[in-house]
Amino acid sequence: MRTVDIIHKKRNGEALSREEIDFLIAGYVQGDIPDYQVSAWAMAVYFQGMSARETADLTMAMTRSGDQVDLSGIPGLKVDKHSTGGVGDTTTLIVAPLVAAAGVPVAKMSGRGLGHTGGTVDKLEAIPGFAVERTKEQFLQQVRDIGLAVVGQSGNMTPADKKLYGLRDVTATVDSVPLIASSIMSKKIASGADRIVLDVKTGRGAFMKTLDDSIVLAQAMVDIGTEIGRDTLAVITNMDEPLGPSIGNALEVLEAIETLRGEGPAELTELCLVLAAHMIVLGGQASSFAEAKDTVERLLHSGAALEKLRQFIAVQGGDAAVVDEPQRLPQAAYRVAVPAPQDGYVARIDAESLGVTAMMLGAGRATKEDRIDLAVGIKLFKRVGDRVKAGEPIAELYMNRSEPEETRRMSERTVSAFAFSEAPVDRLKLIYAVVTKDGVRYL
Amino acid sequence: MRTVDIIHKKRNGEALSREEIDFLIAGYVQGDIPDYQVSAWAMAVYFQGMSARETADLTMAMTRSGDQVDLSGIPGLKVDKHSTGGVGDTTTLIVAPLVAAAGVPVAKMSGRGLGHTGGTVDKLEAIPGFAVERTKEQFLQQVRDIGLAVVGQSGNMTPADKKLYGLRDVTATVDSVPLIASSIMSKKIASGADRIVLDVKTGRGAFMKTLDDSIVLAQAMVDIGTEIGRDTLAVITNMDEPLGPSIGNALEVLEAIETLRGEGPAELTELCLVLAAHMIVLGGQASSFAEAKDTVERLLHSGAALEKLRQFIAVQGGDAAVVDEPQRLPQAAYRVAVPAPQDGYVARIDAESLGVTAMMLGAGRATKEDRIDLAVGIKLFKRVGDRVKAGEPIAELYMNRSEPEETRRMSERTVSAFAFSEAPVDRLKLIYAVVTKDGVRYL
Repeated sequence: MRTVDIIHKKRNGEALSREEIDFLIAGYVQGDIPDYQVSAWAMAVYFQGMSARETADLTMAMTRSGDQVDLSGIPGLKVDKHSTGGVGDTTTLIVAPLVAAAGVPVAKMSGRGLGHTGGTVDKLEAIPGFAVERTKEQFLQQVRDIGLAVVGQSGNMTPADKKLYGLRDVTATVDSVPLIASSIMSKKIASGADRIVLDVKTGRGAFMKTLDDSIVLAQAMVDIGTEIGRDTLAVITNMDEPLGPSIGNALEVLEAIETLRGEGPAELTELCLVLAAHMIVLGGQASSFAEAKDTVERLLHSGAALEKLRQFIAVQGGDAAVVDEPQRLPQAAYRVAVPAPQDGYVARIDAESLGVTAMMLGAGRATKEDRIDLAVGIKLFKRVGDRVKAGEPIAELYMNRSEPEETRRMSERTVSAFAFSEAPVDRLKLIYAVVTKDGVRYL
Repeated sequence: MRTVDIIHKKRNGEALSREEIDFLIAGYVQGDIPDYQVSAWAMAVYFQGMSARETADLTMAMTRSGDQVDLSGIPGLKVDKHSTGGVGDTTTLIVAPLVAAAGVPVAKMSGRGLGHTGGTVDKLEAIPGFAVERTKEQFLQQVRDIGLAVVGQSGNMTPADKKLYGLRDVTATVDSVPLIASSIMSKKIASGADRIVLDVKTGRGAFMKTLDDSIVLAQAMVDIGTEIGRDTLAVITNMDEPLGPSIGNALEVLEAIETLRGEGPAELTELCLVLAAHMIVLGGQASSFAEAKDTVERLLHSGAALEKLRQFIAVQGGDAAVVDEPQRLPQAAYRVAVPAPQDGYVARIDAESLGVTAMMLGAGRATKEDRIDLAVGIKLFKRVGDRVKAGEPIAELYMNRSEPEETRRMSERTVSAFAFSEAPVDRLKLIYAVVTKDGVRYL
């Protein structure tokens, strides 16, 4: 088998065999196939696409390229959730206790984040004492004991994906649906998930800017799950404004606690209930979405999910009292109100821009070496469609530095992420569609 | 400027600016831009193409990447000829003396060949004493003195093209029209040509298999010439059978001598007259193709072109007596007649396959290190459309080894390059079209 022939075949629009895909990925990871052939192949894939079978083969080749987590020692179907990324997305911290409380085991390995705010394990570290490093045995035992563990990623998972992603990043081959879909799915499958629920973000603050593109990506990932026998479902959700009002690590932990207490923002609460309900159905703990939705609403309002969060924090060494005394979370030294510049209605909130502001405040890493300031961030007081009066606070900055120049600049950035209209503006839809192996259902 | 942005732009079908193309090619040659970005860019070019302006910019960026021959010290327009490659193509050895005899200076630097037979300088070395190594001063002085010099390429010409071609070869990006066109034209321009006549081969034995594809390639090269102010014309010629009957170095020199003596094969003679006439028009020594054609026919029949060949050989240290005593050329030890296997008409002659057979006999190099046997080769006795009788010789092998097994195998390969038909077969057209900046003229 020759790599140049594989590139040629894909370039001409033919489907590659499983053997060809395995040869390419294994050779690439081993260093036998050079970057310059793989980048040409990736560009050919960008133009010619891949069939569902090819994409599944690529996913499995990348899954097998490194360590795989074996969750077979844990009874029941393990369901994982993945979000394609957004701003102010606290769903994992809410959904995981809800689902665990419903009897579906959650065994999650999560990476540290690069970008707007930290990843899930960074956010958990805002809880005093919380330890995200666990041996594999401790991790599995904890899931058997309380049905829930979230730990930092260890070992050498999907090295093919890491190497390929690094190459795609510098060769303009990132935005190819089969390459994105196989990248995401290979990591989920290597993490041991039997079933997968995807939260595919769409809109200005998301990777996929249009609903159609988001559905194509969701369909590709659902197809991979179908091909390899791991049922996958995708919910297409709005990222034309931040999902929740909090952007920042401790702020998002607090928001998760409030939501599990039944006092969270309406949209965030609703999306978490929907995602959790789908996970429970896939996990075999409910026979219909409606039944599952009833279950999670009950678990939320009874306090059972909040109790699961307390238990989870305590077992991983954290201070479970934060659930009742949120002031135990890291506190920012300064709060700066950001006033509305005019009367009117909020017409747009640029999630992407606010994410960058949060990162500039210290909530996220620009490079792997950066340290996160867990206390800082942004809290929004308005959503699209809300009426505002000039001077009324539309957001608040949580800062640990008080240089007037920085404060002014961050306030200006925050204001300019908002657009206002004199005429009333409709609220944005939260969930656009659900994609399953049976097709797309628009909501 | 970032390379990834340049790749992205081309991938999205946008035209690159001259600055972007210069940045890419200069950075690649200097080693600042890695292979993996250039191969992804080349694949994007394969799919998105390049405008005439971009292709010209790429050509000039590659031209400027290395040494350029300055022919400005030679009076008059220097016209070069290039063939896109074929089998049994002796035209340079015939056309160059014809054109020089007409007063158009020919200052040719030619590479050694890889493949079926040697390149032009290899062929010239079949003439005893002929020296292809000349200093730059000697080379220019010779053109000023006798209007004709053909020397081996020296210096570091178009290193960008060499590096890019090597990369394209292993990344399935060879067959992209703008990349092929700029590769050919950059070499011609670096060699100092003011005007260029291209012989674009089409058919089974050529790189471009169809007439349409060949015209597209020709048009791209003509457009480059127009963009950079170096008038270029392309003749599209048949390579569905070998151009001339001789395949091999000394055999082709002999064929060139016979042709200049007016005793050459009809098709080869006609094509050489046509190419030479176009060169004379571009060189400003005739005001119409018809006038130029009359001139070259006269120069052929008067012996003036043959005399120019004698002079050329003598000045470069060769034995000019070969022109009258061809037995002074290297002679093969054995000649093996290849008989027709059946009665009928020649329906097809696979030039490519015969070229490989000639190489196996020793006439060409498979790798750069191989030594060429100048005496060996194949002589064909039939063309497509000719009637044959079973047992009648259709070809003769010129060999320096006489192992029966090799002789049998080479004879079989030669026979199997022919296809026969019981019904009469039309002769093949020789010249399909002429492409100039004014468009395509089909013949």
